[in-house]
Amino acid sequence: MAPDVEFLFDFGSPNAYLAHRVLPAIEARTGVRFTYVPVLLGGVFKATNNVSPAVSLAGIRNKAEYQELETQRFLARHAITRFRRNPWFPVNTLRIMRGAEAARTLGLFERYIDAVYDHMWAEPRKMDDPEVMRTAFTDSGLPADALITLMDDPAVKGRLLANTEAAVARGVFGSPAFFVGTAHYFGKDRLEEVEREIIAQRAQPGPS
Amino acid sequence: MAPDVEFLFDFGSPNAYLAHRVLPAIEARTGVRFTYVPVLLGGVFKATNNVSPAVSLAGIRNKAEYQELETQRFLARHAITRFRRNPWFPVNTLRIMRGAEAARTLGLFERYIDAVYDHMWAEPRKMDDPEVMRTAFTDSGLPADALITLMDDPAVKGRLLANTEAAVARGVFGSPAFFVGTAHYFGKDRLEEVEREIIAQRAQPGPS
Repeated sequence: MAPDVEFLFDFGSPNAYLAHRVLPAIEARTGVRFTYVPVLLGGVFKATNNVSPAVSLAGIRNKAEYQELETQRFLARHAITRFRRNPWFPVNTLRIMRGAEAARTLGLFERYIDAVYDHMWAEPRKMDDPEVMRTAFTDSGLPADALITLMDDPAVKGRLLANTEAAVARGVFGSPAFFVGTAHYFGKDRLEEVEREIIAQRAQPGPS
Repeated sequence: MAPDVEFLFDFGSPNAYLAHRVLPAIEARTGVRFTYVPVLLGGVFKATNNVSPAVSLAGIRNKAEYQELETQRFLARHAITRFRRNPWFPVNTLRIMRGAEAARTLGLFERYIDAVYDHMWAEPRKMDDPEVMRTAFTDSGLPADALITLMDDPAVKGRLLANTEAAVARGVFGSPAFFVGTAHYFGKDRLEEVEREIIAQRAQPGPS
Protein backbone atom coordinates (compact mmCIF):
# COMPACT_ATOMS: atom_id res chain seq x y z
CA MET A 1 0.00 0.00 0.00
CA ALA A 2 1.52 3.34 -1.02
CA PRO A 3 2.17 5.54 2.02
CA ASP A 4 1.15 9.17 2.33
CA VAL A 5 4.22 11.26 1.60
CA GLU A 6 4.49 14.94 2.44
CA PHE A 7 6.94 17.69 1.63
CA LEU A 8 6.82 20.59 4.07
CA PHE A 9 8.33 23.64 2.43
CA ASP A 10 8.94 27.36 2.65
CA PHE A 11 10.00 29.20 -0.51
CA GLY A 12 12.75 30.91 1.48
CA SER A 13 14.81 27.76 1.96
CA PRO A 14 17.23 26.99 -0.88
CA ASN A 15 17.55 23.43 0.36
CA ALA A 16 13.78 23.00 0.08
CA TYR A 17 13.97 24.31 -3.49
CA LEU A 18 16.70 21.81 -4.34
CA ALA A 19 14.58 19.00 -2.85
CA HIS A 20 11.62 20.25 -4.91
CA ARG A 21 13.69 19.75 -8.06
CA VAL A 22 14.42 16.12 -7.12
CA LEU A 23 10.94 15.01 -6.02
CA PRO A 24 9.61 14.36 -9.56
CA ALA A 25 12.28 11.71 -10.12
CA ILE A 26 11.37 10.01 -6.83
CA GLU A 27 7.71 10.16 -7.79
CA ALA A 28 8.50 8.60 -11.17
CA ARG A 29 10.49 5.76 -9.62
CA THR A 30 8.11 4.98 -6.75
CA GLY A 31 4.70 5.91 -8.12
CA VAL A 32 3.83 8.10 -5.12
CA ARG A 33 2.85 11.76 -5.27
CA PHE A 34 4.26 14.14 -2.68
CA THR A 35 1.69 16.30 -0.95
CA TYR A 36 3.13 19.80 -0.73
CA VAL A 37 2.46 21.42 2.64
CA PRO A 38 3.23 25.15 2.91
CA VAL A 39 4.68 26.02 6.32
CA LEU A 40 6.10 29.33 7.48
CA LEU A 41 9.71 28.59 8.36
CA GLY A 42 9.99 31.75 10.42
CA GLY A 43 7.09 30.46 12.49
CA VAL A 44 8.74 27.07 12.89
CA PHE A 45 11.96 28.74 14.02
CA LYS A 46 10.10 30.94 16.49
CA ALA A 47 8.18 27.99 17.95
CA THR A 48 11.28 25.80 18.27
CA ASN A 49 13.90 28.45 19.08
CA ASN A 50 15.79 27.30 15.98
CA VAL A 51 17.62 29.58 13.53
CA SER A 52 18.40 29.35 9.83
CA PRO A 53 21.70 27.88 8.63
CA ALA A 54 22.68 31.39 7.51
CA VAL A 55 22.59 32.40 11.16
CA SER A 56 23.96 29.24 12.75
CA LEU A 57 26.89 28.99 10.31
CA ALA A 58 27.95 32.60 10.75
CA GLY A 59 31.39 32.94 12.26
CA ILE A 60 32.25 29.24 12.13
CA ARG A 61 35.35 28.56 10.08
CA ASN A 62 35.10 25.89 7.33
CA LYS A 63 31.46 24.97 7.97
CA ALA A 64 29.77 27.27 5.45
CA GLU A 65 32.39 26.31 2.86
CA TYR A 66 31.58 22.64 3.48
CA GLN A 67 27.85 23.28 3.12
CA GLU A 68 28.56 24.96 -0.21
CA LEU A 69 30.59 21.92 -1.26
CA GLU A 70 27.63 19.68 -0.36
CA THR A 71 25.32 21.94 -2.36
CA GLN A 72 27.59 21.59 -5.39
CA ARG A 73 27.69 17.82 -4.93
CA PHE A 74 23.86 17.74 -4.75
CA LEU A 75 23.53 19.84 -7.90
CA ALA A 76 25.95 17.58 -9.76
CA ARG A 77 24.41 14.32 -8.55
CA HIS A 78 20.93 15.36 -9.58
CA ALA A 79 21.98 17.30 -12.69
CA ILE A 80 20.25 20.46 -11.45
CA THR A 81 21.18 23.43 -13.61
CA ARG A 82 18.36 25.81 -12.71
CA PHE A 83 19.67 27.19 -9.42
CA ARG A 84 20.88 30.64 -8.58
CA ARG A 85 21.40 32.06 -5.13
CA ASN A 86 18.81 34.72 -4.43
CA PRO A 87 20.79 37.97 -4.05
CA TRP A 88 18.11 39.35 -1.73
CA PHE A 89 18.35 36.38 0.66
CA PRO A 90 16.85 36.15 3.23
CA VAL A 91 13.57 37.04 1.56
CA ASN A 92 10.62 37.48 3.94
CA THR A 93 8.26 34.79 2.70
CA LEU A 94 5.11 35.51 4.72
CA ARG A 95 3.18 36.91 1.75
CA ILE A 96 4.26 34.38 -0.86
CA MET A 97 3.62 31.52 1.58
CA ARG A 98 0.12 32.82 2.24
CA GLY A 99 -0.05 33.04 -1.53
CA ALA A 100 0.38 29.27 -1.77
CA GLU A 101 -2.78 28.76 0.27
CA ALA A 102 -4.47 31.51 -1.75
CA ALA A 103 -3.50 29.65 -4.93
CA ARG A 104 -4.98 26.47 -3.47
CA THR A 105 -8.30 28.31 -3.05
CA LEU A 106 -8.08 29.35 -6.71
CA GLY A 107 -7.20 25.86 -7.92
CA LEU A 108 -3.71 27.00 -8.94
CA PHE A 109 -1.64 25.40 -6.19
CA GLU A 110 0.90 23.49 -8.30
CA ARG A 111 1.29 26.19 -10.95
CA TYR A 112 1.86 28.76 -8.21
CA ILE A 113 4.51 26.66 -6.47
CA ASP A 114 6.48 26.06 -9.65
CA ALA A 115 6.27 29.73 -10.63
CA VAL A 116 7.25 31.15 -7.24
CA TYR A 117 10.09 28.68 -6.80
CA ASP A 118 11.34 29.82 -10.17
CA HIS A 119 11.17 33.46 -9.10
CA MET A 120 13.05 32.64 -5.90
CA TRP A 121 15.83 30.26 -6.96
CA ALA A 122 16.06 29.96 -10.74
CA GLU A 123 15.66 33.53 -11.93
CA PRO A 124 15.59 35.16 -8.53
CA ARG A 125 13.65 38.30 -7.71
CA LYS A 126 13.05 40.21 -4.50
CA MET A 127 9.75 38.50 -3.80
CA ASP A 128 9.09 40.35 -0.55
CA ASP A 129 8.77 43.59 -2.49
CA PRO A 130 5.01 43.96 -3.22
CA GLU A 131 5.48 45.35 -6.74
CA VAL A 132 8.16 42.85 -7.67
CA MET A 133 5.87 40.06 -6.45
CA ARG A 134 2.91 41.37 -8.41
CA THR A 135 4.96 41.63 -11.61
CA ALA A 136 6.36 38.14 -11.11
CA PHE A 137 2.87 36.68 -10.76
CA THR A 138 1.73 38.46 -13.91
CA ASP A 139 4.82 37.37 -15.85
CA SER A 140 4.00 33.78 -14.91
CA GLY A 141 0.40 34.08 -16.06
CA LEU A 142 -0.99 33.98 -12.53
CA PRO A 143 -3.95 36.18 -11.49
CA ALA A 144 -1.98 38.67 -9.39
CA ASP A 145 -4.92 40.68 -8.08
CA ALA A 146 -6.90 37.66 -6.97
CA LEU A 147 -3.87 36.08 -5.28
CA ILE A 148 -2.82 39.25 -3.48
CA THR A 149 -6.36 39.96 -2.27
CA LEU A 150 -6.74 36.40 -1.00
CA MET A 151 -3.47 36.62 0.96
CA ASP A 152 -5.39 38.70 3.51
CA ASP A 153 -8.27 36.27 3.71
CA PRO A 154 -8.56 34.94 7.28
CA ALA A 155 -9.11 31.37 6.07
CA VAL A 156 -5.95 31.50 3.92
CA LYS A 157 -3.89 32.99 6.73
CA GLY A 158 -5.37 30.47 9.14
CA ARG A 159 -4.43 27.50 6.95
CA LEU A 160 -0.78 28.55 6.76
CA LEU A 161 -0.72 29.06 10.53
CA ALA A 162 -2.40 25.70 11.14
CA ASN A 163 0.04 23.91 8.80
CA THR A 164 2.94 25.49 10.65
CA GLU A 165 1.66 24.66 14.12
CA ALA A 166 0.84 21.09 13.09
CA ALA A 167 4.34 20.67 11.66
CA VAL A 168 5.96 21.74 14.92
CA ALA A 169 3.64 19.43 16.84
CA ARG A 170 4.83 16.55 14.62
CA GLY A 171 8.49 17.25 15.34
CA VAL A 172 9.51 19.65 12.58
CA PHE A 173 12.23 22.20 13.38
CA GLY A 174 13.58 23.17 9.95
CA SER A 175 13.26 22.91 6.19
CA PRO A 176 12.91 20.84 4.13
CA ALA A 177 10.99 18.28 6.12
CA PHE A 178 9.43 15.10 4.76
CA PHE A 179 6.97 12.61 6.16
CA VAL A 180 6.58 9.09 4.84
CA GLY A 181 3.51 8.01 6.76
CA THR A 182 4.51 9.16 10.25
CA ALA A 183 8.27 8.86 9.68
CA HIS A 184 9.94 12.29 9.75
CA TYR A 185 13.03 13.11 7.70
CA PHE A 186 14.88 16.41 7.79
CA GLY A 187 17.04 17.84 5.03
CA LYS A 188 17.59 17.40 1.32
CA ASP A 189 20.33 14.91 2.13
CA ARG A 190 17.74 12.43 3.42
CA LEU A 191 16.02 12.02 0.07
CA GLU A 192 17.60 8.64 -0.60
CA GLU A 193 16.33 7.41 2.75
CA VAL A 194 12.93 8.94 2.05
CA GLU A 195 12.79 6.94 -1.17
CA ARG A 196 13.85 3.72 0.55
CA GLU A 197 11.23 4.28 3.25
CA ILE A 198 8.53 4.80 0.63
CA ILE A 199 9.48 1.50 -0.98
CA ALA A 200 9.63 -0.26 2.40
CA GLN A 201 6.21 1.02 3.48
CA ARG A 202 4.70 0.23 0.09
CA ALA A 203 5.79 -3.39 0.51
CA GLN A 204 3.81 -3.72 3.74
CA PRO A 205 0.28 -5.10 3.56
CA GLY A 206 -2.55 -2.63 4.01
CA PRO A 207 -4.75 -2.46 7.11
CA SER A 208 -7.80 -4.14 5.58
CA MET B 1 43.98 3.03 -8.27
CA ALA B 2 42.74 2.86 -4.69
CA PRO B 3 42.57 6.33 -3.13
CA ASP B 4 43.96 7.26 0.27
CA VAL B 5 41.06 7.28 2.69
CA GLU B 6 41.23 8.86 6.11
CA PHE B 7 39.01 8.86 9.17
CA LEU B 8 39.62 11.82 11.49
CA PHE B 9 38.30 10.97 14.94
CA ASP B 10 38.08 11.99 18.55
CA PHE B 11 36.96 9.38 21.09
CA GLY B 12 34.58 11.94 22.58
CA SER B 13 32.24 11.98 19.57
CA PRO B 14 29.55 9.29 19.64
CA ASN B 15 28.97 9.84 15.92
CA ALA B 16 32.64 9.09 15.25
CA TYR B 17 32.29 5.88 17.28
CA LEU B 18 29.27 4.84 15.24
CA ALA B 19 31.20 5.51 12.03
CA HIS B 20 34.11 3.46 13.42
CA ARG B 21 31.74 0.51 13.76
CA VAL B 22 30.74 0.77 10.10
CA LEU B 23 34.17 1.27 8.50
CA PRO B 24 35.14 -2.44 8.51
CA ALA B 25 32.17 -3.24 6.26
CA ILE B 26 33.17 -0.48 3.83
CA GLU B 27 36.75 -1.75 3.88
CA ALA B 28 35.53 -5.26 3.13
CA ARG B 29 33.38 -4.11 0.21
CA THR B 30 35.90 -1.73 -1.35
CA GLY B 31 39.27 -3.23 -0.43
CA VAL B 32 40.59 0.05 0.99
CA ARG B 33 41.92 0.54 4.51
CA PHE B 34 40.97 3.69 6.40
CA THR B 35 43.87 5.55 7.93
CA TYR B 36 42.80 6.60 11.43
CA VAL B 37 43.92 10.15 12.24
CA PRO B 38 43.55 11.24 15.88
CA VAL B 39 42.46 14.88 16.15
CA LEU B 40 41.47 16.81 19.24
CA LEU B 41 37.89 17.88 18.64
CA GLY B 42 38.11 20.55 21.32
CA GLY B 43 41.04 22.02 19.38
CA VAL B 44 39.07 21.90 16.13
CA PHE B 45 36.14 23.65 17.80
CA LYS B 46 38.40 26.30 19.27
CA ALA B 47 40.14 26.96 15.94
CA THR B 48 36.88 27.14 13.98
CA ASN B 49 34.61 28.72 16.60
CA ASN B 50 32.35 25.66 16.29
CA VAL B 51 30.57 23.91 19.17
CA SER B 52 29.46 20.33 19.78
CA PRO B 53 25.94 19.20 18.87
CA ALA B 54 25.23 18.91 22.59
CA VAL B 55 25.72 22.67 22.81
CA SER B 56 24.17 23.72 19.51
CA LEU B 57 21.05 21.57 20.01
CA ALA B 58 20.40 22.82 23.53
CA GLY B 59 17.15 24.72 23.85
CA ILE B 60 15.91 23.95 20.33
CA ARG B 61 12.60 22.13 20.36
CA ASN B 62 12.37 18.88 18.31
CA LYS B 63 15.94 18.96 16.99
CA ALA B 64 17.64 16.78 19.62
CA GLU B 65 14.73 14.32 19.43
CA TYR B 66 15.22 14.13 15.66
CA GLN B 67 18.96 13.52 16.05
CA GLU B 68 18.16 10.68 18.44
CA LEU B 69 15.76 9.25 15.86
CA GLU B 70 18.53 9.40 13.25
CA THR B 71 20.89 7.65 15.67
CA GLN B 72 18.37 4.86 16.15
CA ARG B 73 17.94 4.57 12.37
CA PHE B 74 21.72 4.35 11.93
CA LEU B 75 22.02 1.66 14.62
CA ALA B 76 19.23 -0.37 13.01
CA ARG B 77 20.53 0.02 9.45
CA HIS B 78 24.01 -1.14 10.40
CA ALA B 79 22.91 -3.68 13.03
CA ILE B 80 25.02 -2.01 15.69
CA THR B 81 24.23 -3.42 19.12
CA ARG B 82 27.34 -2.36 21.04
CA PHE B 83 26.46 1.25 21.80
CA ARG B 84 25.66 2.89 25.10
CA ARG B 85 25.57 6.60 25.78
CA ASN B 86 28.47 7.54 28.03
CA PRO B 87 26.85 8.75 31.27
CA TRP B 88 29.84 11.04 31.93
CA PHE B 89 29.50 12.80 28.56
CA PRO B 90 31.15 15.09 27.69
CA VAL B 91 34.38 13.34 28.61
CA ASN B 92 37.54 15.44 28.29
CA THR B 93 39.51 13.46 25.73
CA LEU B 94 42.86 15.28 25.75
CA ARG B 95 44.70 12.46 27.58
CA ILE B 96 43.15 9.53 25.75
CA MET B 97 43.69 11.26 22.40
CA ARG B 98 47.35 11.81 23.23
CA GLY B 99 47.23 8.17 24.23
CA ALA B 100 46.40 7.23 20.65
CA GLU B 101 49.65 8.79 19.46
CA ALA B 102 51.44 7.20 22.42
CA ALA B 103 50.04 3.83 21.36
CA ARG B 104 51.32 4.46 17.82
CA THR B 105 54.82 4.91 19.26
CA LEU B 106 54.40 1.58 21.06
CA GLY B 107 53.09 -0.22 17.99
CA LEU B 108 49.66 -0.63 19.60
CA PHE B 109 47.67 1.92 17.64
CA GLU B 110 44.79 -0.26 16.42
CA ARG B 111 44.47 -2.25 19.62
CA TYR B 112 44.37 0.97 21.61
CA ILE B 113 41.67 2.51 19.41
CA ASP B 114 39.41 -0.51 19.66
CA ALA B 115 39.90 -0.75 23.42
CA VAL B 116 39.34 2.93 24.17
CA TYR B 117 36.30 3.15 21.90
CA ASP B 118 34.90 0.21 23.83
CA HIS B 119 35.53 1.97 27.13
CA MET B 120 33.85 5.12 25.82
CA TRP B 121 30.76 3.90 23.96
CA ALA B 122 30.20 0.17 24.46
CA GLU B 123 30.84 -0.32 28.17
CA PRO B 124 31.37 3.33 29.04
CA ARG B 125 33.69 4.54 31.77
CA LYS B 126 34.73 8.00 32.93
CA MET B 127 37.87 8.02 30.83
CA ASP B 128 38.98 11.49 31.90
CA ASP B 129 39.48 10.21 35.44
CA PRO B 130 43.17 9.20 35.65
CA GLU B 131 42.58 6.11 37.78
CA VAL B 132 39.59 4.96 35.73
CA MET B 133 41.66 5.36 32.58
CA ARG B 134 44.59 3.41 34.03
CA THR B 135 42.32 0.57 35.13
CA ALA B 136 40.62 0.49 31.73
CA PHE B 137 43.96 0.19 29.94
CA THR B 138 45.03 -2.64 32.24
CA ASP B 139 41.69 -4.41 31.84
CA SER B 140 42.21 -4.31 28.09
CA GLY B 141 45.70 -5.75 28.32
CA LEU B 142 47.36 -2.46 27.37
CA PRO B 143 50.61 -1.28 29.05
CA ALA B 144 49.07 1.45 31.20
CA ASP B 145 52.29 2.84 32.66
CA ALA B 146 54.03 3.13 29.31
CA LEU B 147 51.01 4.74 27.67
CA ILE B 148 50.44 7.24 30.46
CA THR B 149 54.11 8.21 30.61
CA LEU B 150 54.24 8.70 26.85
CA MET B 151 51.18 10.98 26.93
CA ASP B 152 53.48 13.68 28.27
CA ASP B 153 56.12 13.09 25.62
CA PRO B 154 56.57 16.27 23.55
CA ALA B 155 56.66 14.33 20.28
CA VAL B 156 53.38 12.58 21.11
CA LYS B 157 51.70 15.82 22.15
CA GLY B 158 53.11 17.50 19.07
CA ARG B 159 51.71 14.87 16.71
CA LEU B 160 48.17 15.27 18.09
CA LEU B 161 48.46 19.04 17.79
CA ALA B 162 49.85 18.80 14.26
CA ASN B 163 47.06 16.40 13.18
CA THR B 164 44.49 18.82 14.58
CA GLU B 165 45.97 21.90 12.94
CA ALA B 166 46.33 20.10 9.62
CA ALA B 167 42.70 18.98 9.79
CA VAL B 168 41.47 22.53 10.29
CA ALA B 169 43.69 23.70 7.44
CA ARG B 170 42.03 21.07 5.21
CA GLY B 171 38.53 22.29 6.04
CA VAL B 172 37.54 20.18 9.04
CA PHE B 173 35.17 21.75 11.57
CA GLY B 174 33.65 18.73 13.35
CA SER B 175 33.64 14.97 13.86
CA PRO B 176 33.61 12.52 12.23
CA ALA B 177 35.42 13.76 9.16
CA PHE B 178 36.53 11.65 6.21
CA PHE B 179 38.83 12.28 3.29
CA VAL B 180 38.75 10.24 0.09
CA GLY B 181 41.84 11.60 -1.60
CA THR B 182 41.26 15.31 -1.12
CA ALA B 183 37.45 15.08 -0.98
CA HIS B 184 36.15 15.99 2.47
CA TYR B 185 32.99 14.46 3.96
CA PHE B 186 31.50 15.39 7.31
CA GLY B 187 29.30 13.21 9.47
CA LYS B 188 28.40 9.56 9.84
CA ASP B 189 25.50 10.12 7.48
CA ARG B 190 27.92 10.62 4.57
CA LEU B 191 29.31 7.11 4.74
CA GLU B 192 27.35 5.94 1.72
CA GLU B 193 28.77 8.83 -0.30
CA VAL B 194 32.24 8.12 1.05
CA GLU B 195 31.92 4.58 -0.23
CA ARG B 196 30.67 5.72 -3.63
CA GLU B 197 33.55 8.19 -3.87
CA ILE B 198 36.07 5.47 -3.04
CA ILE B 199 34.65 3.33 -5.84
CA ALA B 200 34.60 6.29 -8.25
CA GLN B 201 38.21 7.25 -7.51
CA ARG B 202 39.35 3.64 -7.70
CA ALA B 203 37.93 3.44 -11.21
CA GLN B 204 40.12 6.31 -12.37
CA PRO B 205 43.45 5.54 -13.98
CA GLY B 206 46.55 6.18 -11.90
CA PRO B 207 49.05 8.96 -12.60
CA SER B 208 51.74 6.71 -14.10
